[in-house]
Amino acid sequence: MFTAKAYAAASKTSPLAGTTIARRTATERDVQIEILFCGICHSDIHYARDEWHEVMPAVYPAVPGHEIVGRVVTVGSAVSKYKPGDLVGVGCLVDSDHTCPNCREGLEQFCPGQVLTYGSPDRHGTAPVTYGGYSDSIVVDERFVLRIPENLDLAGAAPLLCAGITTYSPLRHWGVTKGKKVGIVGLGGLGHMGVKLAHAMGAHTVVFTTSPSKVEDAKRLGADEVVISKNVDEMNKHVGSFDFILDCVAAQHDINAYIQLLTRDGNITMVGAPDKPLSVNVFGLIMGRRSFSGSPIGGLAETQEMLDFCGQHNITADVEVIPIQKINEAYERIVKSDVKYRFSIDMASLKAE
Amino acid sequence: MFTAKAYAAASKTSPLAGTTIARRTATERDVQIEILFCGICHSDIHYARDEWHEVMPAVYPAVPGHEIVGRVVTVGSAVSKYKPGDLVGVGCLVDSDHTCPNCREGLEQFCPGQVLTYGSPDRHGTAPVTYGGYSDSIVVDERFVLRIPENLDLAGAAPLLCAGITTYSPLRHWGVTKGKKVGIVGLGGLGHMGVKLAHAMGAHTVVFTTSPSKVEDAKRLGADEVVISKNVDEMNKHVGSFDFILDCVAAQHDINAYIQLLTRDGNITMVGAPDKPLSVNVFGLIMGRRSFSGSPIGGLAETQEMLDFCGQHNITADVEVIPIQKINEAYERIVKSDVKYRFSIDMASLKAE
Repeated sequence: MFTAKAYAAASKTSPLAGTTIARRTATERDVQIEILFCGICHSDIHYARDEWHEVMPAVYPAVPGHEIVGRVVTVGSAVSKYKPGDLVGVGCLVDSDHTCPNCREGLEQFCPGQVLTYGSPDRHGTAPVTYGGYSDSIVVDERFVLRIPENLDLAGAAPLLCAGITTYSPLRHWGVTKGKKVGIVGLGGLGHMGVKLAHAMGAHTVVFTTSPSKVEDAKRLGADEVVISKNVDEMNKHVGSFDFILDCVAAQHDINAYIQLLTRDGNITMVGAPDKPLSVNVFGLIMGRRSFSGSPIGGLAETQEMLDFCGQHNITADVEVIPIQKINEAYERIVKSDVKYRFSIDMASLKAE
Repeated sequence: MFTAKAYAAASKTSPLAGTTIARRTATERDVQIEILFCGICHSDIHYARDEWHEVMPAVYPAVPGHEIVGRVVTVGSAVSKYKPGDLVGVGCLVDSDHTCPNCREGLEQFCPGQVLTYGSPDRHGTAPVTYGGYSDSIVVDERFVLRIPENLDLAGAAPLLCAGITTYSPLRHWGVTKGKKVGIVGLGGLGHMGVKLAHAMGAHTVVFTTSPSKVEDAKRLGADEVVISKNVDEMNKHVGSFDFILDCVAAQHDINAYIQLLTRDGNITMVGAPDKPLSVNVFGLIMGRRSFSGSPIGGLAETQEMLDFCGQHNITADVEVIPIQKINEAYERIVKSDVKYRFSIDMASLKAE
């Protein structure tokens, strides 16, 4: 075991503050990583504040962070994929059962024995639960370590580990390619990645937003068209025309307005999770044999595929880089949707503490 | 033109009564059919009573009926597929535009220029709208005429033209085969066909019903298991295990209770259309990348495939045969779900009038 610096919430009402945590010494298959940047995901806030108590009760001290980019410091004796100095990333998962049908298909995101990067029982016994990336280092099984293309901006690469894969996976799963018409609903942390990725996949990419102020930025990010979703006439021009829509809105909204825009056999997938149910008009699904789905992150192989794709297309998240001392302010701004489009913590600021 | 006997509603509040209607003389590509049996679909009632006014306003006199079985009387000079005496059927469609992408793929159920068997503008100018199968004869383009296997019971074969294809098409579309676990929700006209078809496709078939009184009948129809959907413990035993669920319930119900029963990438498809929206818990879709869909009838090629499949497996609907003079009584019983499981009108009763 060794001691690492970290930022943690001591209770659901405490602001995050500097502390130290125990990390295990790298075992045979482990990679010890010096964390350079960690993105801030809205899930971090839900966990720190215990807002998802029913599905994922917080254990304090809570150290969030699952959009991790860093350099390998040491590796265990059996590690074959990485060596000290390699640029690597860690996303939402740090382990799984390796044996279930999902794992055997490389779909660890569905493994019932998955270990989340933070808040899951720690199988190594170093701490009651796993501690995430708001820290200067982390130790992870090499099978859950990803390679980061060296050409990417590191601060912007960090959010690829959650926001990137969460949008990439459903775009691929539902067959988005050149020649398809794809909608992206909501232009936040997830949505702005969806636009960049769908555009790079060659799709005709249409952004739906409630804010006329976001039109220019959506086009800069890669949108071919932008539709103000409150404008019924504008929406009606697109009825029956979308092959796929990625819905990145976690708030209540009228999903039927988007379902009617799908073509025959079209699909709309939610990656945002509104906490109350959505009202779905069944007639809209029957007419056109449309479907309404959800999708969580992605498996390890697909996450690596996404990172390689981003390397080829030089795609990173648009980030505002902050020192970790501004984490609580950043949380407040995320809750108000006041960030373009993701915060990335420069972990050098933690070293200086 | 010639005169045919029919039963029609004169207004949305009138009971159906005997009348005469004009049918066109068979043109080159037409088949003139003597109707032997016509099933009663709940849609017939919605149309006769103008309950679907917004999507399909009724035009009176309204002659419903789209589950038609009969014998060919005469054929036009260009008809190649049928000859007098052939046993044939007509379902929900009697024409389409033949040129749209849907038609070119044999998916006429999605053609924007489709002509429904009743209530669509009549392109031949014989009547303001098409008149359905509550009649002693009908004239239909041969491309919309199906062949009925001679081994089938004719009264029971009639409902295959709507209830049969409506359940067969999604079962096939979502890949139901031997080795899959399939749920059927609701044991009415559609549901009882779903059970027979899923069982014949080799799937492990589970019926969900609110009525313990239906357990034995569900097993007789082909269910391997029956779950009383109000029993939470029984439902919980099946969490995450269904490849596909066909939901045949047109009333309000808790769809989330079924979504959680789906396996990874599982799909639940609605063929019943509740008139109010259903509440969908998005978390249930995200966890497991599940999808929620709808499906209408089927195309002509698939309808023929379904009829041939039913011929091979000797599948027909369980019907209560009535003379057409009992149509209004039958409507009342359908509204109360008091029929096992479909009414089929013996059209000989109309001849006798």
